[in-house]
Amino acid sequence: MEKIFVIKIGGNIIDNTEQLDAFLQQFSDVKEPKILIHGGGKLATELAASLNISQQLIEGRRITDAATLEVVTMVYAGSINKNIVAKLQVNNCNALGLCGADANLIAADKRIVKNIDYGFVGDIKPDGINISFLKLLFQNNITAIIAPITHNNAGQLLNTNADSIANEIAKALSINFQVHLIYCFNKKGILKDVNDENSVIKTITNKTAVDLKLNGSINEGMIPKIDNALQAVAAGVHKVSLGHALALNEIVKGNAGTDIQQLF
Amino acid sequence: MEKIFVIKIGGNIIDNTEQLDAFLQQFSDVKEPKILIHGGGKLATELAASLNISQQLIEGRRITDAATLEVVTMVYAGSINKNIVAKLQVNNCNALGLCGADANLIAADKRIVKNIDYGFVGDIKPDGINISFLKLLFQNNITAIIAPITHNNAGQLLNTNADSIANEIAKALSINFQVHLIYCFNKKGILKDVNDENSVIKTITNKTAVDLKLNGSINEGMIPKIDNALQAVAAGVHKVSLGHALALNEIVKGNAGTDIQQLF
Repeated sequence: MEKIFVIKIGGNIIDNTEQLDAFLQQFSDVKEPKILIHGGGKLATELAASLNISQQLIEGRRITDAATLEVVTMVYAGSINKNIVAKLQVNNCNALGLCGADANLIAADKRIVKNIDYGFVGDIKPDGINISFLKLLFQNNITAIIAPITHNNAGQLLNTNADSIANEIAKALSINFQVHLIYCFNKKGILKDVNDENSVIKTITNKTAVDLKLNGSINEGMIPKIDNALQAVAAGVHKVSLGHALALNEIVKGNAGTDIQQLF
Repeated sequence: MEKIFVIKIGGNIIDNTEQLDAFLQQFSDVKEPKILIHGGGKLATELAASLNISQQLIEGRRITDAATLEVVTMVYAGSINKNIVAKLQVNNCNALGLCGADANLIAADKRIVKNIDYGFVGDIKPDGINISFLKLLFQNNITAIIAPITHNNAGQLLNTNADSIANEIAKALSINFQVHLIYCFNKKGILKDVNDENSVIKTITNKTAVDLKLNGSINEGMIPKIDNALQAVAAGVHKVSLGHALALNEIVKGNAGTDIQQLF
């Protein structure tokens, strides 16, 4: 199967222009077909504050009311997305900025209200990823740059977690491609010792993860990321890596970051 | 040659949700391949005011400073563009929202400073329209929805007049298609008598325009629109129409609006 990369970056890199430019250069250097999913960053919070839109938190979870949805649509799908696209075009990477409504790329359901009303938050529908559109882009050497905004096929935009989008796209494409899903963050990988940046665990598998969790050698904050990755490889993604955004070229080659793989 | 439609809407319709929905229904009903270019509307001005970004005017011309560029990128390419796309998807119109940086659709030059520094304003480059990308969309039954933001191929987004984008796209596509360019506004067409909404001039040609202008039967505010349209038809666009956004279905059939055509 043809190899492709699904790469996710978060707010920490988006907020640092120099690091973002360096990352985008490395991203452009990836020769295989690739997709970038980006998160938010400080700009949305700052814009909301400037507009006196208060950030509602219920039980520590952020709520997306109508005003906040408007802000994140403007910031994620407008400012961040289009600036990344313009920068990639300079690197001869033929970038195309998208949200989930564009070409019906990602269909989602507004999260059902149980204990908490999350507001305009979308959970990706089963079979919600438009695989044939992504294939069309690959065939034409066009690189999708995806903002974490989806739609419900009834005219409503929805705020959706960027990690979930990366995960669902990687899984959906695994039917046709050998997918390497890379989560970039501000650590070199999953660390044995959170105080030692050089204690990166090279490989975690479904077999070793249980022990690592049980003996406390994985920091608690890392557990959701690892579970997410394990779920992706169990669902057919060839490999999931977690590593530093500025080590992308090495992660792509298998020389940096933590790889999460499924052993049978 | 295959017939296609290039349709432009302005702020007056974007600011009115009910009228916008009605227009988008008519737009979706157009069976031929089509492109929509949208302008701004009040939202950008309101957001700038909320953020205390003062609108600079020099000799009556609006200046796009860095803060204003950020606002229009968010509002045009983020909010307005993605909301239109989500609404069209409901009508089974496979819309794809774009700015000029996406897939290098529209390359522009930052306007040279002569008497006035317009700031981050872009004038479309000769051959600046990516025709092959638009053809790819037509072939795949995808409808481009274009926000009036371009780029300079050096990483800089630029604010570009939506009428100019419509004009340049229509001209560029005329090599391969029979292009009908439609400017929607809040009048039924070019009026003989500005006080009489029913005095629409059915057809203006390069031959009749001179007389209409000379004898004062065209309102001065309409002259730039007509000159713009005459220039398009002279450059190969099959027909340019000006009419009311909510008469789109009739304009498409040739039953409403003012048609501007080239006679040889």
